[in-house]
Amino acid sequence: MPQPHGQNIDPAAAAQQSLRKVHPPPGDAASLGRDGCTRRAFGPEAEALSFSSDCARFGSSKGIAAISRDVDTQNRGGVAPPGPFSFRLLASDGGARRGEIATAHGPVATPAFMPVGTQATVKGLAPEAVRASGADIVLANTYHLMLRPGAERIAALGGLHRFMHWPQAILTDSGGFQVMSLAQLRKVEDKGVTFRSHLDGATVELSPERAIEIQGLLGSDIAMQLDECLQLPASRPELERAMRLSLAWAERSKLAFKTAPPERALFGIVQGGDDLRLRIESARALVDIGFHGYAIGGLAVGEPREVMLRTIAEVAPALPGDRPRYLMGVGMPEDLVEAVARGIDMFDCVLPTRNGRHGLAFPRFGPINLKNARHADDPRPLDAASPCPAARDYSRAYLHHLVKANEMLGAILLTTVNLSYYQELMADMRRAIAAGTFADLRAATSEGWARGEAGAS
Amino acid sequence: MPQPHGQNIDPAAAAQQSLRKVHPPPGDAASLGRDGCTRRAFGPEAEALSFSSDCARFGSSKGIAAISRDVDTQNRGGVAPPGPFSFRLLASDGGARRGEIATAHGPVATPAFMPVGTQATVKGLAPEAVRASGADIVLANTYHLMLRPGAERIAALGGLHRFMHWPQAILTDSGGFQVMSLAQLRKVEDKGVTFRSHLDGATVELSPERAIEIQGLLGSDIAMQLDECLQLPASRPELERAMRLSLAWAERSKLAFKTAPPERALFGIVQGGDDLRLRIESARALVDIGFHGYAIGGLAVGEPREVMLRTIAEVAPALPGDRPRYLMGVGMPEDLVEAVARGIDMFDCVLPTRNGRHGLAFPRFGPINLKNARHADDPRPLDAASPCPAARDYSRAYLHHLVKANEMLGAILLTTVNLSYYQELMADMRRAIAAGTFADLRAATSEGWARGEAGAS
Repeated sequence: MPQPHGQNIDPAAAAQQSLRKVHPPPGDAASLGRDGCTRRAFGPEAEALSFSSDCARFGSSKGIAAISRDVDTQNRGGVAPPGPFSFRLLASDGGARRGEIATAHGPVATPAFMPVGTQATVKGLAPEAVRASGADIVLANTYHLMLRPGAERIAALGGLHRFMHWPQAILTDSGGFQVMSLAQLRKVEDKGVTFRSHLDGATVELSPERAIEIQGLLGSDIAMQLDECLQLPASRPELERAMRLSLAWAERSKLAFKTAPPERALFGIVQGGDDLRLRIESARALVDIGFHGYAIGGLAVGEPREVMLRTIAEVAPALPGDRPRYLMGVGMPEDLVEAVARGIDMFDCVLPTRNGRHGLAFPRFGPINLKNARHADDPRPLDAASPCPAARDYSRAYLHHLVKANEMLGAILLTTVNLSYYQELMADMRRAIAAGTFADLRAATSEGWARGEAGAS
Repeated sequence: MPQPHGQNIDPAAAAQQSLRKVHPPPGDAASLGRDGCTRRAFGPEAEALSFSSDCARFGSSKGIAAISRDVDTQNRGGVAPPGPFSFRLLASDGGARRGEIATAHGPVATPAFMPVGTQATVKGLAPEAVRASGADIVLANTYHLMLRPGAERIAALGGLHRFMHWPQAILTDSGGFQVMSLAQLRKVEDKGVTFRSHLDGATVELSPERAIEIQGLLGSDIAMQLDECLQLPASRPELERAMRLSLAWAERSKLAFKTAPPERALFGIVQGGDDLRLRIESARALVDIGFHGYAIGGLAVGEPREVMLRTIAEVAPALPGDRPRYLMGVGMPEDLVEAVARGIDMFDCVLPTRNGRHGLAFPRFGPINLKNARHADDPRPLDAASPCPAARDYSRAYLHHLVKANEMLGAILLTTVNLSYYQELMADMRRAIAAGTFADLRAATSEGWARGEAGAS
């Protein structure tokens, strides 16, 4: 397998990928976080610096700027440049993998869920609250940021991390998906895509090279190649055309990324819709090009859930075991568990944030629609046993009132509850994979959802 | 002067009201907060329990529920009921007064600014963030809460403090002002006011007795009498009619409040518009009835600023020195300073929150409109020297972006900045009055606003 430039896979970790279970080396035990996941690069102050996954701390007594400075000091030691991007596989359990991505902005424990910060903010939450929910990394949208406030402007202001006051890792998408879903009058050609901005109608061009340039200006830790993502169902010729175009763009993206510093990573995106032959062809061709990580795109775009899961099950084994695998735009909590079972390491999705803004809570025993009048007199919190105060400290009656009265605090609290639950679920999965009990967790979680609230302990 | 039932004014403190400056007794020195204000009733854990005025802690590592329990334990000692409502005058400097209100939900340092929590939430902020901004007390609106979710419902859920998860003090208005400004087809009669709900058009009646009943169901620490507040300018006969009606309602309110427990307080409201003779008549009659505190209503409703300040200067001395004086619905930062100079102890106003939601920041050197395009590339924070991270940690360019993109975080951060500045200003005034330097602070603050940002240190 070709090595992309700047790649620095730990050979020992890579060799371990075929082992069923790999425990972290004993030397790491001292830095085990409360979720049982190793935390690197924070040094002796790890406890003081790391936010707890208990979102009790909507913020921290230590300002996030101070944390950022500390991280810089710890990571960079005054003069040393940040280390290269890398991925370590720490354990696996069946198809499920427990790993850690090293970035210039701190480690990312995998399986990881990335909250979506479309316009350089996770809607409704200050960055401290996003961090407190347990996120190591957020996703930001190239399409939105290139249009407003502009990538060159963000670069002049010191890059996206500083702009949005988020010192942890950032993945940027390439803009392709939003061009397809949001922009008007788009024209897809070999050279790239031309579209009208949804904000002011201005004509904008986005090529694979420009997408890489923009993501470089933003300074994200993980950049994505430009691809063409089709809505499903789509005809085979259309799927094949879009897949081949995406492959051509992948090669050009790789070339354009050549001058990027080694701490930044570029992921290729597997396309091919619901056609498994196209999917495998796409995956193999991308692996031949060689990327720091591989995404599966074009799922959760209209196909049945079984098709999505079967596609993941087929594609994941075709991707190298020593690189992170990212399932784009997925999904519901049960989708995360099933995708992790099939070898996925990273996720992003707007569901926890968007649903939170629309009155839908995801506590651990399944969704609760707070708009429903049956909550109006209910003194119970969403989940008295949750580590998240937003789930514990407010009655359903109050949340119902806030949602009905269209109060911002309703969106804020439900977004907090949802992101916290998603992160708790990821932490549970990481723990279970390390302990070799992922199958038990998967069954218990699924049963818990089926039983619903009445069965919750 | 007649004593309202349940009144428990510290006679020593009352005797001190004529002194120019009164320092807190030495025994209180140990519990001096970081702003130099005494904090009572928190006992030995004062430091651990009291939120710092530094809004760095958007929340606290200690859940607010835990704080509430601690406060209950501290205040109530297991079985002892909460102490009666009281006001202590701690110092005065010219007309300006430094005091402390004791409530069943903790002390309120005066001069105090009460953020407005109209629908049982200070818009955009979790209660922890409101507390972290420095607020000892919030205002909630009877009119809104009686219509949605309903006072009986809130009572059944344990009262407003529990409902909105705010363990500190709450003042509720009587609903009169909103009936006049929001409701449709209102009819004012001697018995009360009948109106159509702005939510669903339902016909609702509000009498002085019902306003007291509702506030009792909500369980606020300070209730307000129902009054009729006129927009200015208004004719003298109209002003006189409304003032006399408000006086009649004041008497009925006092009667209706007779069965309230001693830890709850009732304030009368001086009316009379811009007619000073009516104002003095109103004040004297209210003092004859006897209330725990006195509000000046019907200002900041269309009259010139000089008229407002002159009215305050005339009315305040007509009110008893040993009771808190509350200027309703005011105002801009400079109004707060000038009103404190004229003897006002309490304020509420939607400006810091409403303006924050509309892109207007109030840092210490005057307003900044973040909508303005000139901020688009400005890397400076709103105020690098602020104790508030929201003012310190985000560039104006980022705030401009959030406001333009209509992102909730823009409203959240600017609301935080504005409430924090208002509370810093109150704390500065409390310190200055205690130190006998209020005139210096007043001059320096006014000069600072005049110089603007360029002159800020």
